[in-house]
Amino acid sequence: MKKTLSQFLPILNWGKEYSKEIFVADAIAALIVTVMLIPQSLAYALLAGLPAEVGLYASIAPLILYTIFGTSRTLSVGPVAIISLMTATAIGAIAEPGTIGYLETAIALSLLSGIFLTLMGLFRLGFIANFLSHPVMAGFITASGLLIALSQLKHILGISISGHNLTEQLASLFSNIGMTQYPALLIGAGSIIFLLFIRNSLENLLKKIGLSDYVASLLVKAGPVFAVMITIILTASLSLDQKNLDIVGMVPQGLPSLQLPELNMDIVIKLGSAALLISLVGFVESISVAQTLAAKRRQHINPNQELIALGMSNIGSSAVGGYPVTGGFARSVVNFDAGAVTPAAGGMTAIGIALATLFLTPFLYYLPKATLAATIIIAVMGLVKIQPMIDTWRYSKSDFFAMAVTILLTLFLSVEAGIITGVASSFILFMYKTTKPHYAVVGRVDGTEHFRNIKRHNVITDPRIISIRIDESLYFSNIRYLENEINKLVAAQPECEHIILMCSAVNSIDSSALESLESINHRLIDANVKLHMSEVKGPVTDKLSKTTFMDDLSGQIFLSQYEAFNALSNNSPT
Amino acid sequence: MKKTLSQFLPILNWGKEYSKEIFVADAIAALIVTVMLIPQSLAYALLAGLPAEVGLYASIAPLILYTIFGTSRTLSVGPVAIISLMTATAIGAIAEPGTIGYLETAIALSLLSGIFLTLMGLFRLGFIANFLSHPVMAGFITASGLLIALSQLKHILGISISGHNLTEQLASLFSNIGMTQYPALLIGAGSIIFLLFIRNSLENLLKKIGLSDYVASLLVKAGPVFAVMITIILTASLSLDQKNLDIVGMVPQGLPSLQLPELNMDIVIKLGSAALLISLVGFVESISVAQTLAAKRRQHINPNQELIALGMSNIGSSAVGGYPVTGGFARSVVNFDAGAVTPAAGGMTAIGIALATLFLTPFLYYLPKATLAATIIIAVMGLVKIQPMIDTWRYSKSDFFAMAVTILLTLFLSVEAGIITGVASSFILFMYKTTKPHYAVVGRVDGTEHFRNIKRHNVITDPRIISIRIDESLYFSNIRYLENEINKLVAAQPECEHIILMCSAVNSIDSSALESLESINHRLIDANVKLHMSEVKGPVTDKLSKTTFMDDLSGQIFLSQYEAFNALSNNSPT
Repeated sequence: MKKTLSQFLPILNWGKEYSKEIFVADAIAALIVTVMLIPQSLAYALLAGLPAEVGLYASIAPLILYTIFGTSRTLSVGPVAIISLMTATAIGAIAEPGTIGYLETAIALSLLSGIFLTLMGLFRLGFIANFLSHPVMAGFITASGLLIALSQLKHILGISISGHNLTEQLASLFSNIGMTQYPALLIGAGSIIFLLFIRNSLENLLKKIGLSDYVASLLVKAGPVFAVMITIILTASLSLDQKNLDIVGMVPQGLPSLQLPELNMDIVIKLGSAALLISLVGFVESISVAQTLAAKRRQHINPNQELIALGMSNIGSSAVGGYPVTGGFARSVVNFDAGAVTPAAGGMTAIGIALATLFLTPFLYYLPKATLAATIIIAVMGLVKIQPMIDTWRYSKSDFFAMAVTILLTLFLSVEAGIITGVASSFILFMYKTTKPHYAVVGRVDGTEHFRNIKRHNVITDPRIISIRIDESLYFSNIRYLENEINKLVAAQPECEHIILMCSAVNSIDSSALESLESINHRLIDANVKLHMSEVKGPVTDKLSKTTFMDDLSGQIFLSQYEAFNALSNNSPT
Repeated sequence: MKKTLSQFLPILNWGKEYSKEIFVADAIAALIVTVMLIPQSLAYALLAGLPAEVGLYASIAPLILYTIFGTSRTLSVGPVAIISLMTATAIGAIAEPGTIGYLETAIALSLLSGIFLTLMGLFRLGFIANFLSHPVMAGFITASGLLIALSQLKHILGISISGHNLTEQLASLFSNIGMTQYPALLIGAGSIIFLLFIRNSLENLLKKIGLSDYVASLLVKAGPVFAVMITIILTASLSLDQKNLDIVGMVPQGLPSLQLPELNMDIVIKLGSAALLISLVGFVESISVAQTLAAKRRQHINPNQELIALGMSNIGSSAVGGYPVTGGFARSVVNFDAGAVTPAAGGMTAIGIALATLFLTPFLYYLPKATLAATIIIAVMGLVKIQPMIDTWRYSKSDFFAMAVTILLTLFLSVEAGIITGVASSFILFMYKTTKPHYAVVGRVDGTEHFRNIKRHNVITDPRIISIRIDESLYFSNIRYLENEINKLVAAQPECEHIILMCSAVNSIDSSALESLESINHRLIDANVKLHMSEVKGPVTDKLSKTTFMDDLSGQIFLSQYEAFNALSNNSPT
């Protein structure tokens, strides 16, 4: 593929076709997304243990940078629930929430994560994200959703809950539950009920009273904004903040200043593994959202360019004093549904959020934290899913094992331990499987030229011949197993004079496998057994012919297994 | 397979059939191997930086334990060159050669390595050794051979050479070469020439003067013993030890005492990685020798039981004050050629070495270290091979890369860095390859029911149909690539209405791949494209039918690709 500048700056692709119609569509989408993002950004910043305005900052620069570098037309980049939780966990281990050090660490984490993502993109290492398998991700998201919901209960109840895992948090919850503050409970539980009502019933209600589908769905999406406005008015008018209700308080007005944090070796060592995990999890989440939306319009996502775009977004977030961001599911779907056509919608959303930080922040003073907690709880409820666990259990026990390990460790030990152990266990299971190539001893189906597994079919064999169908490419990790199996088969069948390797599914043979085949050949010569091969693919034959293997082979290479069996057997039909 | 006691104690298998004839054969082999092992054991102990007698001790207990636990009939376990070098490197990093601490560390290393091997065997983790690919092992052995030969030059020249890698050692060699001691050079170079003559010319000469092939080959194998005897006599009679010739000196007489070293957490941490590497390298060397010899007699080696046997051998070596051991190539081949029938030959060899420690050690006083260095240099010359490098370069550039990295880092950085980086690089290349499944877009060969790659053959296609033949099993590490490729293909062919996945080579689909197939299906529905599958294997269909995948599939599952193409295409022949 030719490398062009537009591959690195996808904005050049869609920018040149930009029109007034597209602008209008993008602007409407931007307005809707902005309204939705204001409470969401504040809420996720609080979830990460950061001041509310940090969430707004993290929604400005990343959106602009993704507009320039991203390959998805509709992905919306900013603070998301899981990454906020991971940020809180990572920073909580080295700084005290509420301190300057905590905020500075979050900014450094975002920079580090941005650098990792950009490097992975430049070196085309996106494939590393493949190792976060679906069961591990699903388990991790479910467990994180539970942890997030639980962590928000403190705002709903107006009590303090501490601890990084379920056991600690539950213990803390039960010991403090007697101190529940009723104003918080009123606002928090009220918001939850209100949001559930909006989500479950309002749309139909609005349609019944004659509103169009489009307006009805817009009003539903603005639900959290209504909850925010109503509870601000309630708190201010009833002076609930005097009655032990936690409020957001003073939010600095104006745009953030531009400044990159200093990265020293000490920070890189302390935050390195957390930044890498956040990068990978964020990338996997983002790319699957991007691909889902792109496919609906037959557009194409370039994973390595996405890494660069997310990397730039995180570096940008860091530069404005934000924290780690990624492409979010809810915000991107709203953007898509609201009719965004190009990433310019994201850029305009950034302007919307910037205007909010300039003019709206004074109104957020009386915003109860309980309201934001309610919006988070409603948002993460959708993350906790039981059905995939049941499906995975039924489909594959080893995948379920990796999933269960991830869930249990995330809940009861820590978020990082959960995902690392999950990846490690799926990796070990995978490695173990790759060390055992799929193979079958085959015989001829009577009256045909087909060869089938002797264990499953009634086939014709010859005690002097062992035919082995190899169902996978041969390489260093699986060749020794095959070597050992061939030794076993020969040792168990003393009449054997010929081994035929049927290679119809062998796409490649690496140097290790070649050398092992050579030593199998020599050992079989010592045991007076000839080694033959059949149905070797063209590219494999080409490579083998560069070596002396074919000359040294004690037997022959046959075009088909039928031909091989015919030539060597007494039981052949001819 | 039924587990029987004889699986864990293979001695029970061959022990019950033991006869007088077998005893005589084993005893003769044991005598020959003993004669060969005495100088070899002394030499390798010096290579490891240990007192000479430690080599003898390490040749007693391991042989006895392998006799009980080993599955190879002819493998000979004891000190070998590469493991001795690795031992010297590992211990040299934490203790000073010649000190009690150095010896104690060697003993602890042997115990730790024995424990690792035994655990790997019990937990059936032998497959881990698969990840030491052939190119990495070949590169490592060649580089180690060079380092070993160079390290012995100090004894041949009678000077001191220091440093753990080639650069340091060469610098040290050139700065000290002016201090060459002529007695050492005389004995050392003389021994090398003598040994080369014996190896290259003596056998034919002896046959010419009428000796039988058997006797001639025996005398050749005893070559090092003659060199030892001649140089001892020369040194003693000319008092060369007074003329700056380094001699072995006082070797303690008698059997070693039994005592296991204490292992504390500190030692485990310091030696852990070295012990693991030594275990894996030793195991790979040993198992390939064992398999080569076993195949000649159609016997079978059980890799996991071999791990246990090597583990016990190392624990045994440690208990008698020895150092890490493994199955050696040269010693095992001599044992095999000398006619050993059962592992009892090894047990008798142990008795032979024990007798040597009881009665022969006084005669070793005047043995010049230069003689032992000469035997080592001759032995490791065979390890340095250029041809495999050329072959690997021609066969596979990525395998050659892993090999070159291993060689260069082993030579110029350290033995451990070399093998670790080699394994890591072959692993990364492997992971990278597994993330890209082999696939081909196929079309129908005119006049046949066969489907072939559209890039290689002139085939019939239909712009409304994309047929993709998947050549590998689908799992988490490769499914995202396929997902992306399908997206690309659909985005590039706007007329496309049907995708057919031809699954003839798909042996399994894991949960991640299943979920990705589901989302591919849903995305294609959004893009008005139907997803079909053909030639799905029985076991795969069985598993898929446990899920809702087949019900949700927008298209159909066809028995053959021909049937699928026929049913969907306008270009079908019917």
